[in-house]
Order: sequence, then C-alpha cells, then structure tokens
Amino acid sequence: MHSAQQLLALYDERFSNNNFHTHPSGLYEPVNHIMSIKGKRIRPLLLMMGCEMFGGDVIHALDPAFAVEVFHNFTLVHDDIMDNGDIRRGAPSVHKLYGINAAILAGDVMIPYVYKHLTVLPTLIGPMLEVFNTTAIEIFEGQQLDIDFEKRTEVSEAEYLKMIEYKTSVLLAACLQLGAIIAGATEQDQRLVYDFGLKLGLSFQIMDDYLDAYGEQDKVGKRIGGDILMNMKTYLYVTAFSKADADQRTQLLAAFNETDEDKKIATVKSLFDATGARQHTLDRAGQLYKEAMLSLEKTSVSAEQKAPLMSLAQMISDRQF
Amino acid sequence: MHSAQQLLALYDERFSNNNFHTHPSGLYEPVNHIMSIKGKRIRPLLLMMGCEMFGGDVIHALDPAFAVEVFHNFTLVHDDIMDNGDIRRGAPSVHKLYGINAAILAGDVMIPYVYKHLTVLPTLIGPMLEVFNTTAIEIFEGQQLDIDFEKRTEVSEAEYLKMIEYKTSVLLAACLQLGAIIAGATEQDQRLVYDFGLKLGLSFQIMDDYLDAYGEQDKVGKRIGGDILMNMKTYLYVTAFSKADADQRTQLLAAFNETDEDKKIATVKSLFDATGARQHTLDRAGQLYKEAMLSLEKTSVSAEQKAPLMSLAQMISDRQF
Repeated sequence: MHSAQQLLALYDERFSNNNFHTHPSGLYEPVNHIMSIKGKRIRPLLLMMGCEMFGGDVIHALDPAFAVEVFHNFTLVHDDIMDNGDIRRGAPSVHKLYGINAAILAGDVMIPYVYKHLTVLPTLIGPMLEVFNTTAIEIFEGQQLDIDFEKRTEVSEAEYLKMIEYKTSVLLAACLQLGAIIAGATEQDQRLVYDFGLKLGLSFQIMDDYLDAYGEQDKVGKRIGGDILMNMKTYLYVTAFSKADADQRTQLLAAFNETDEDKKIATVKSLFDATGARQHTLDRAGQLYKEAMLSLEKTSVSAEQKAPLMSLAQMISDRQF
Repeated sequence: MHSAQQLLALYDERFSNNNFHTHPSGLYEPVNHIMSIKGKRIRPLLLMMGCEMFGGDVIHALDPAFAVEVFHNFTLVHDDIMDNGDIRRGAPSVHKLYGINAAILAGDVMIPYVYKHLTVLPTLIGPMLEVFNTTAIEIFEGQQLDIDFEKRTEVSEAEYLKMIEYKTSVLLAACLQLGAIIAGATEQDQRLVYDFGLKLGLSFQIMDDYLDAYGEQDKVGKRIGGDILMNMKTYLYVTAFSKADADQRTQLLAAFNETDEDKKIATVKSLFDATGARQHTLDRAGQLYKEAMLSLEKTSVSAEQKAPLMSLAQMISDRQF
C-alpha cells in the first residue's frame, strides 16, 4: 500500500500533460487552465485509496481517478459561471479569463474525456457507470437545490443536509466505491465505504459552515463571518432559524439588512449561540464523523488496510489536508 | 423491418414521459421543455434504421436512440446560449425562458441520462462508448471551430468542411454506426454506414447553405439571403472568397458593411455566380450525395435492407423530411 503522497505522485506522473487534444486551442486552453490550477485532488486520492484498501492494484485505478478529477473540474467551471465566482484556487476562474461561452464549451468537452477514462476496465464498465451516472445526476440536483434555497427564507435541516449530500458528499462517496469496485470488493464493503465517504463529506461541510463563523482566521484562510455577511443559508443558519422563537426569527431576518458588518456578524452569532444552533452544529458534525468511522470499521478488511483512509479522514477533519 | 413512421411511433411510445426525475422542478422543467419541442428526431431514427438494416431487433436500439436525442438536445441548449439563439423549433429557447444559469445546469444534467440510456446493452458498452465519446469530442471541437471562423476573414474550403463535419455530420454518422453495432454488423459495414451518414450530412449542410441564397422562400421556410445579411461564412462564401480575384475579394469584403439589404444580397449573389462558387457548391453537394449512396451500396446487406435508408436519404436530400 502507498501513502497519500505516493499515490498523488503516481497520479501526477501519469497525468502531467497531454491528456486532451490540443486543437482547437480556444477550446482546450480553458480546459488546461482549470486542470493546471490543481486543488488537493482529494477525489482521485479517495478513489485510489478505496482501491488499495480492498487489495486492488492502483494501476487500474489511475484512469478512473483522473476521470473523477476531470468531472469535478468540469462542475467547478460551470458552477463558477452560475455563482459568479471570479477566483478559483487563487487564480481567475475560467469564465473570468476566457468568457462565459468558452467556459460553457470547455466544461462540455471535458465530459467525453471523463467517460473515456472512467471506462478503461472492460469487465467493470457496467457497475462503474451505474455508480457514476447516479452520482452525477445527484450532483446537478444538489446544485439546483442550492440555487433554490438561496431564494427561500426557510429551509429545513433535512433539506439542507440533502443539498450538501448531493452537491458535494456523494462524489466523495462514489470515488471510494469506484475504487472498491476496481478492487473487486463485495457489495457490502462497497456500501460501507460509500457510507464512510458520504458521512465524512457531510461532517466536513457542516464543520466548514461552523468554522466560517467560529474558526480562527489564520486557519480558515478567509474572513470569519463571510457566510453571515453574504446571508448564506448555512447549517448554522438553517438550524438557528428552525430552533428560534418568534422574536429570534425576527432578529435573524432583520440582520439580513444590517449594513454595519461587525454588528451584523456579532448579532447573528449571538443568535446562533442563543438558539443552541452553535452547539447543535458542532454535535452534528461530530456525530457524522463518528458514524463515518464506524462504517469504515465495519468493512471486512484488516485494521492495517483501513489505516491510510482512517488517518486521511483524521487529517481532513483536522483541516490538515 | 419498420417504416420511418413506425420506428418513430415505437420510439415515441417508449419515451412519451417520465424519462427524467421530476424533482427539483427548477432543474427538470427546462429539460422537459427542450425535449417536448420535438424536432424531426432524425438521430434516433438513423440509429434505429442502422440497427434494422443489419438485421438487429429495434427493441435493443430504443434506449441508445433516446440517448443520442437527449445528447443532441443538450448541445442545442448550450449552443443557443453561445449563439444568442432566442428561438428553437418555433418555441423560446431554454435560456430565453429560464435564464442562462438554468440552461447551463439543465444541459449538464442531461449528460448522465445520455450515458445511462446509451449503455443498456452490457456486451456492447465498450464499442458503443468508444464511438460515442469520440463523436462527442468532435462535436464540441466543431462548435469551437465555428466560433473561431466567425472571427476570421478567410477560411479555407477544407477547414469549413472539417467544421461542418465535426459540428453536425459526425453525430448522424455515429447514430448509424451505433445502430449497426447493436445489430452485430461487421467493422467494414460499420465503417461504410458511418461514411454514408457523414457524407449525407455534409451534402445536406452544403445544400442548406446553397438554398439559403438560392432556394425558394416557401420551401426553405426563412428569408432568402439570411446568411448573407448576417455575414455568415457559408460554403458559398468560403469558396467564393477562395476563387475570387483581387477585385472580387474587395467587393465581397465591402459587402459586409452594405446597409441596403436587397442590394447586399444581390451583390453577394452576383459574386457567388461570377466566381463560380454557386456552381461549385451545387456540384460538391451532389458529389457528396453520390459518394454517400455509394457507401450505402457497398454494405454487405441486400438491396431490400438498404431500401429504407436509401429512401430516407432521398427524402432528406429533397427537403421532404
């Protein structure tokens, strides 16, 4: 078994360049731009680790790992258009650099490359496609739910969880399952490792919401309270609103229009505290993390084989990866 | 074997409704809008006919036929954003009705449905995906070439042919090949029927350019000379420019800025005549049509089995389908 660093080195070596056609350049320059501003490549890493955990040869996981990373990048390109995101991974987003039309088309052409690399293992195409297509549908549905929720005053906790599950967690879970499929894992093990990824993802997202309001600026890497200033419907907000009494609801809604930024952050955070949303959010993230670990525990492989994913989960949870 | 009408009836019966999830409605309403304003459904028809021609059971071709139609509609949704097209098949385009973001996301979510329906035949997934992914890449490259060419003064005839081949003909050809694969046709027959579709598509596109300038308004269904008024780089224009002498080139370029519409059309058409571009265009379309028919002829099946595609090609060429 390889370490996370070794796996990413293998991956980088294989996909350092020439993964797409070069012509027409107006089409492929934007593709190469988003692919070159690398993120943490957590999805390919999870896929490769899911494969090795169940005794598979990581060589077979490389192309599918690339596929999920290309797919993720395609969704980022289109999401940045929809969300008006000008910066991505510290660089200009694709549509900012090349225009909206180029960003639409660059995203589109990445898709057949995704499916090409995903389906290099002839005997596994069927089950792998089934997982992947279901996941892709959920991701786009999650993006739509996110868009819908921003227009609504009230969103239930269950609705919010479904949205973040679809928008981000299912792909992490699917990466692990795809790796498990490549390794020939049982359906039971596939389900367990999927559940591990799903709950780890949910826990991470909920903590992300928490840290945006309560983290340390240095660690979080962005201004504390940014979500509050943008009136974002985070897990904190959603639970605060559902737990609030009539008076607190009025205050939460009024804060949307508060123009003094410091006052706005302080008011909303005091309501997160008073409604119990702060504690509930922490508890929920912790509970989901435990459930994730429990699913990983239950898989049929040795403790040694579980160790790399267990420590990666710990590092992700500690914001050290 | 079924007639074209019978095949489309089978197809319509199978895919009349409930082909997509219903929730979130903000995502699927735009999808159902583009799917409900049906076109001629020429792509699914070609796929089904390609299957029956080589003795396949059309039942196996229905899902893949739906896949290529969903894919085609997805490209229309995104192309209409890029081309600022407000009307599609006589109805408002998706982005006109629901906004650009909704149109981007609706197009995106159609993709996993495409691949789901394309891959329902377990033993044929590999070869079918290979044809389809290659074709999809070419289509997006063709769209980029089209965008690039509109910004250039001079485009060679070979470049123009490559653009229309990629942008529209390869999908028609791929539909026929996919049908042939489903029927278990030999690789030689697959190549021949692909070539038939490719050249039929090219011939059709070139005649489309011709008829826009020289057709009868009633038959063409739009104002004669529309392409000229919009300074479109059609096959007529591209060949006229390459055949023109220095003086004629100056006149062609000057016509771009002519504001009197009737005068503009008359001037450019006289240059199409004078340079020989008009005749060359007619000849080229006719030659490609003949080559298409020759490829169909060469396939290893009986004249009877070729007859439906032969007569469909005739009807398409005569603008009766």
